[in-house]
Amino acid sequence: MRSMRYEPARLIGQVAPLQRYLAVRAQTERLAEPLSAEDCALQSMPDASPTKWHLGHTSWFFETFVLEHALPDFSPYRAEFRVLFNSYYVGVGPRHPRHERGLLSRPSVDEVLAFRRNVDERMEELFTRHPVAAQQVANLVELGIHHEQQHQELILTDLKHLLSRNPLLPAYRKETRAARQERQSPQIGWRLFPEGIRQIGHEGRSFAFDNEQPRHRQFLAAFEISDRLVTNGEFKQFVEDGGYARAELWLSEGWDACVARKWSRPLYWRDGELFTLGGVVPLDAAEPAAHLSYYEADAYARWAGARLPTEAEWETAARDEPTSGNFLESGRLHPMPGTGQYFGDTWEWTSSAYAPYPGFRPAEGAVGEYNGKFMVNQQVLRGGSCVTPAAHIRASYRNFFPASARWQFTGMRLARDAR
Amino acid sequence: MRSMRYEPARLIGQVAPLQRYLAVRAQTERLAEPLSAEDCALQSMPDASPTKWHLGHTSWFFETFVLEHALPDFSPYRAEFRVLFNSYYVGVGPRHPRHERGLLSRPSVDEVLAFRRNVDERMEELFTRHPVAAQQVANLVELGIHHEQQHQELILTDLKHLLSRNPLLPAYRKETRAARQERQSPQIGWRLFPEGIRQIGHEGRSFAFDNEQPRHRQFLAAFEISDRLVTNGEFKQFVEDGGYARAELWLSEGWDACVARKWSRPLYWRDGELFTLGGVVPLDAAEPAAHLSYYEADAYARWAGARLPTEAEWETAARDEPTSGNFLESGRLHPMPGTGQYFGDTWEWTSSAYAPYPGFRPAEGAVGEYNGKFMVNQQVLRGGSCVTPAAHIRASYRNFFPASARWQFTGMRLARDAR
Amino acid sequence: MRSMRYEPARLIGQVAPLQRYLAVRAQTERLAEPLSAEDCALQSMPDASPTKWHLGHTSWFFETFVLEHALPDFSPYRAEFRVLFNSYYVGVGPRHPRHERGLLSRPSVDEVLAFRRNVDERMEELFTRHPVAAQQVANLVELGIHHEQQHQELILTDLKHLLSRNPLLPAYRKETRAARQERQSPQIGWRLFPEGIRQIGHEGRSFAFDNEQPRHRQFLAAFEISDRLVTNGEFKQFVEDGGYARAELWLSEGWDACVARKWSRPLYWRDGELFTLGGVVPLDAAEPAAHLSYYEADAYARWAGARLPTEAEWETAARDEPTSGNFLESGRLHPMPGTGQYFGDTWEWTSSAYAPYPGFRPAEGAVGEYNGKFMVNQQVLRGGSCVTPAAHIRASYRNFFPASARWQFTGMRLARDAR
Amino acid sequence: MRSMRYEPARLIGQVAPLQRYLAVRAQTERLAEPLSAEDCALQSMPDASPTKWHLGHTSWFFETFVLEHALPDFSPYRAEFRVLFNSYYVGVGPRHPRHERGLLSRPSVDEVLAFRRNVDERMEELFTRHPVAAQQVANLVELGIHHEQQHQELILTDLKHLLSRNPLLPAYRKETRAARQERQSPQIGWRLFPEGIRQIGHEGRSFAFDNEQPRHRQFLAAFEISDRLVTNGEFKQFVEDGGYARAELWLSEGWDACVARKWSRPLYWRDGELFTLGGVVPLDAAEPAAHLSYYEADAYARWAGARLPTEAEWETAARDEPTSGNFLESGRLHPMPGTGQYFGDTWEWTSSAYAPYPGFRPAEGAVGEYNGKFMVNQQVLRGGSCVTPAAHIRASYRNFFPASARWQFTGMRLARDAR
Repeated sequence: MRSMRYEPARLIGQVAPLQRYLAVRAQTERLAEPLSAEDCALQSMPDASPTKWHLGHTSWFFETFVLEHALPDFSPYRAEFRVLFNSYYVGVGPRHPRHERGLLSRPSVDEVLAFRRNVDERMEELFTRHPVAAQQVANLVELGIHHEQQHQELILTDLKHLLSRNPLLPAYRKETRAARQERQSPQIGWRLFPEGIRQIGHEGRSFAFDNEQPRHRQFLAAFEISDRLVTNGEFKQFVEDGGYARAELWLSEGWDACVARKWSRPLYWRDGELFTLGGVVPLDAAEPAAHLSYYEADAYARWAGARLPTEAEWETAARDEPTSGNFLESGRLHPMPGTGQYFGDTWEWTSSAYAPYPGFRPAEGAVGEYNGKFMVNQQVLRGGSCVTPAAHIRASYRNFFPASARWQFTGMRLARDAR
Repeated sequence: MRSMRYEPARLIGQVAPLQRYLAVRAQTERLAEPLSAEDCALQSMPDASPTKWHLGHTSWFFETFVLEHALPDFSPYRAEFRVLFNSYYVGVGPRHPRHERGLLSRPSVDEVLAFRRNVDERMEELFTRHPVAAQQVANLVELGIHHEQQHQELILTDLKHLLSRNPLLPAYRKETRAARQERQSPQIGWRLFPEGIRQIGHEGRSFAFDNEQPRHRQFLAAFEISDRLVTNGEFKQFVEDGGYARAELWLSEGWDACVARKWSRPLYWRDGELFTLGGVVPLDAAEPAAHLSYYEADAYARWAGARLPTEAEWETAARDEPTSGNFLESGRLHPMPGTGQYFGDTWEWTSSAYAPYPGFRPAEGAVGEYNGKFMVNQQVLRGGSCVTPAAHIRASYRNFFPASARWQFTGMRLARDAR
Repeated sequence: MRSMRYEPARLIGQVAPLQRYLAVRAQTERLAEPLSAEDCALQSMPDASPTKWHLGHTSWFFETFVLEHALPDFSPYRAEFRVLFNSYYVGVGPRHPRHERGLLSRPSVDEVLAFRRNVDERMEELFTRHPVAAQQVANLVELGIHHEQQHQELILTDLKHLLSRNPLLPAYRKETRAARQERQSPQIGWRLFPEGIRQIGHEGRSFAFDNEQPRHRQFLAAFEISDRLVTNGEFKQFVEDGGYARAELWLSEGWDACVARKWSRPLYWRDGELFTLGGVVPLDAAEPAAHLSYYEADAYARWAGARLPTEAEWETAARDEPTSGNFLESGRLHPMPGTGQYFGDTWEWTSSAYAPYPGFRPAEGAVGEYNGKFMVNQQVLRGGSCVTPAAHIRASYRNFFPASARWQFTGMRLARDAR
Repeated sequence: MRSMRYEPARLIGQVAPLQRYLAVRAQTERLAEPLSAEDCALQSMPDASPTKWHLGHTSWFFETFVLEHALPDFSPYRAEFRVLFNSYYVGVGPRHPRHERGLLSRPSVDEVLAFRRNVDERMEELFTRHPVAAQQVANLVELGIHHEQQHQELILTDLKHLLSRNPLLPAYRKETRAARQERQSPQIGWRLFPEGIRQIGHEGRSFAFDNEQPRHRQFLAAFEISDRLVTNGEFKQFVEDGGYARAELWLSEGWDACVARKWSRPLYWRDGELFTLGGVVPLDAAEPAAHLSYYEADAYARWAGARLPTEAEWETAARDEPTSGNFLESGRLHPMPGTGQYFGDTWEWTSSAYAPYPGFRPAEGAVGEYNGKFMVNQQVLRGGSCVTPAAHIRASYRNFFPASARWQFTGMRLARDAR
């Protein structure tokens, strides 16, 4: 797997890999703890998956890409799970249709948890009894860990969508948000970056996905980028200025979506209130706006006389910033008012379409389907969100969603050409 | 509620009404016993509802149409349930969208069972402490009991559909079918009925739905009707004769459905096997064919040189037959080989479109929406099925489904003009 | 073709068949005279066909069902036309898809007219040079003549729909309507028919479609039927009484259609105006309401405290009425205020689903697809309209359309149970 | 209109602008000459428009953006045309729905041609009697001329699609292609471009669209680009190698499209034959492959071990190449075998998503809707095609279509990273 140019031996040398594996696995299961079996089984739309499916799929990933290749006398835990929990890996074989993931009352969540335990036991066996084989698949173990972290985020965003479709508007966990401290959002400040050739993409031997590589040069004209995210209060002004009724502010396709889906405000906004993973709360003007589609973010930026940054501009600005922020581990599960941070709170839409970097080669084997095959009609997002695991993010990290997607914690930061 | 021309006082006099109520309610809950919370929550298609929803809706029916009108100081158990569990009664108020019944992980099945208990307690209170009020709504109690029986059937057919969409093909209950006794199906015999004016519709003071009334006269030409249902073995000959590929055998709309949905055999048929509530079993040639759409039944009849009976013909033939048969209470949950019976095993498609009888008046109030508003683009079915409660059926009973419906236990009996 | 039980020899003996043929064919072409080639080529919806297609299809009918069977050394005019102009006769072979009839700029309307002339010449040859063969297919010639008359009506209704979708709202022919004479619509009167066994269906040796046969007995309860059609003025009261917003007045499926398609008044109504084949005119309160779906007619009847007649009731009432009325030949192409007539002006929805009469047998051969295969999910209409050829109609005539259809001249007459 | 940074005075000084205007207008009408009124009126899919609509829309463009602003006492030719012929300019007012452009039998093509003449007369009046006003809108006249040239191309591609949907497969013009000279396609050669900062975008004072500007710097890694287009013969090898059945070669979204639309070869391919504007001809292996979607082009490149060029790579390679080639004026209306040319024959898909250049500002006023609002979910194409007017193209020209579009003359050239 040449195209992932990090050195697993060193990395695993630093932190005991089995311990990291087990810690991430346990974190996933903790996310499901507040949930009933029913909560875990339902699917609210084709884009979202049941929690139970996420629990199974992440285990399938280790079974299929690690255990099958590394464990002597491997046989699958249950043959049917090979199909049920395959997401989109055509190279692995058939897949249960994505939009029917919510039709599976069996296996029960308990049976899926048993599958998880079995995979964990076999992983433990691999690490303790077959260290050479474990070393050979260390890259894939690392990939599986990061894969599992991605699904931790999806468990919460998919669940949030499901709960939002319930007229009872139930909370995932009542105590999610810290005591709210109303504060003013600071004036937006702008940071200037002069023109020049910039190095973009992942560098070094630590883990990164294939799509962050290879590191390469881009020429950037001088630009300015704002020092904080756009807030609910600011976005509300856009709404009140008729932003959702003014075609001239929107991309043509965005306007079509706005009309067809009858958008009049961000997803999860209610009258003066907001649906969150902690239930319905008052809309806080100081918090970063979230759950925006690219179309809405783009229209807002145009209305505000600015634009979205390109992903290269964003990476240039964020490269030397600390990656600390409001992540999954804070337990808030909601963006917080604040300044300056490039990481956490909400993913930030960029104006860049998701495309291969010059010299990109997908990883070899079926895991090569991880990223490369989605490189059309998606926009890049940067920076992670309040439900991203902290250890998962970095400045070169490229997330991607279609321009119409609203159910992730997606927000925005403004940019503009340097005057 | 004049249009239901039975006398509840007498009927309730014969059997203690509270006991009947409680018995039917308990029967519903027994159906859910083999199910997990996950099984109860899922919805496999807009036409089908989750078990949990059926449990709640039948309780909503008593709360809304009985308790609200009869109990002093009535207040609803939970205000949201008024919307969540309203099916299609526009007169009662808003309804949670039918196709989103499977998006409700809350209330949990336990919360719904608590709602059931609460309704039962209040019903008990009504009967014991407010006998005069109870007497005044006796008709509605009776309607609610029959309504609950209908949903007992739907719980099983909807669940069967859900389980069939699961690649694991799980059984509802392994022990459903009696030991199979392969036998030959007897030759079809024909019963001749001479022409004449026939009395059609419900008569007497026992319960019947408004759509079975008023009793009225119809002139029928002489006809013959077969003495048993069409079997799997016979239907297999139709399949093997290219029945699903010969447009000339089908109604135009049926052919369009056949092509568009890629039908090539009855729902739940597999290669030489059959999916049942007891899991996958060998296809038994002697059993009645089930899960046929009207289109398939009509095409088969044409292929067989016969036709489907009209509902008046069916009722004429069945009027004096015993209503015993293979019903829900047998625990088989599957049609059985046999002869002669007009009741149980499978509903029988008739060639009659569902229409009001001469002089039909819907029941007054919101329960008037029960039947009358569906009297277009549906076909009448007669006789009950293996998942119909035995006490629910009678010769004048009119069931109705769209011609394309396949997920009920729907089969057929042949008829022909007398020579 | 046993199932058409009329005697063509006699009929043809009475009127020279070739002359009748030529007269009907010429009448079709006169309908196309006011139209440009562009008018003739467009298709406004899958249900409607371009004029050019009607011109070709009616010729295809004679070529396929008459000339091919009767003319020595037959070869088709153009092989491609066999497919292009086949409507729904699966027994004849493949068909150009219905919803793509408007994608055919070639053959041009001139080429289609040349095809018509060629068919006419060959028909003339058949009648004059092969009288014995002509006699053998006389039934099919007769069927073709009636078929062509049906398409004369469709040419005008399909064209009306097309023109209505054009923002310029062009007229088919400016001079269609006679000088309007505003008059009061007379009070509705009711005719009483006592209960009894009625003879229903076509009788005698004159032409009728297979679906009007065999003549048979039905028992009818006593009923009353109104002596004129419901008018625009009356229907306007329904609209103004909130008829389109009151779910309780509608069939469930009708209400769904009303909401989904945003119906708020009859098709072609505008504010105080009406789109007609003569262009936009003031809405005349005295004229019969037209272009109603079955759902709207049914809802109106319920609102008015009445119901629609069954087709047997209608036929009983109309049997002895004169078949004179406002037909295609009047040139008005629009319903007229008036009383008493059962024929012309608008087709009248009945509450009867389209079903086979007892003993029905479809015609043999591919023409057996003419009627029988549509006998599900359609409602019967009676009486003909202002664009029906006068010679085409009779008391036993059964027209049929889906309950949602609005683009035909479809209106209504009320009925009620006798008190 | 600052953002179009060319100098119209000079340009118009060089060539008499009225003469250029009239020449382009006449060229459009010549394209419609072989067509019947019916050919001009039909619409084969929402993406394509009737020829008649193109004739009207291009005239509407001059009337709305030039005459209305420059001509004293302006009034529109017909008020309804303001709506009928507005394509997507929200700033101008309402628009007739795009997918209903094929429902307009009126205005007739003759009436539209009369509209064209009227616009031409008023344009002539503007140039001859109001030279100062004409000078003030010279930029818009120039834009209108280029706009009309774009629609010349669309007339032919939309018409080709329409004719292809006709089972008769008629030719637009029989004599389109020169006598075919079977020849071998030369081996692909590769041109190497070293890494460096490149100037991208339009420069100078000649006309260019706003989306080609501003000229700016991009850093490009070293790359190689092939010296000719991929041919039918080469693409056939991909087909025969199972290219349309191998998911691993496709982008995920492309594979979904391939399966859902049942693609198995390029649009207009038939068994060993090709549908062209000259009718059906044998498939010529030496000709450039055309009518490929981006998905197909991308899959082919992956199969061939190469990739598509970025638009910056393409522009770098093409910048100094002659813009001569096989364009509309050749009258062939079909790609020709050949080598080396970057212009004409087929548009070339690039791997670049359509996005604003750094510093991009849309033109002011409603014409600002021309390009900018489409900058999401489209791919850039370069180089022009065999139905592009020669004078319309240049190295910086950016065409754009969705990745699924196939009905344009879209082909491909390969690229690869320099070794």
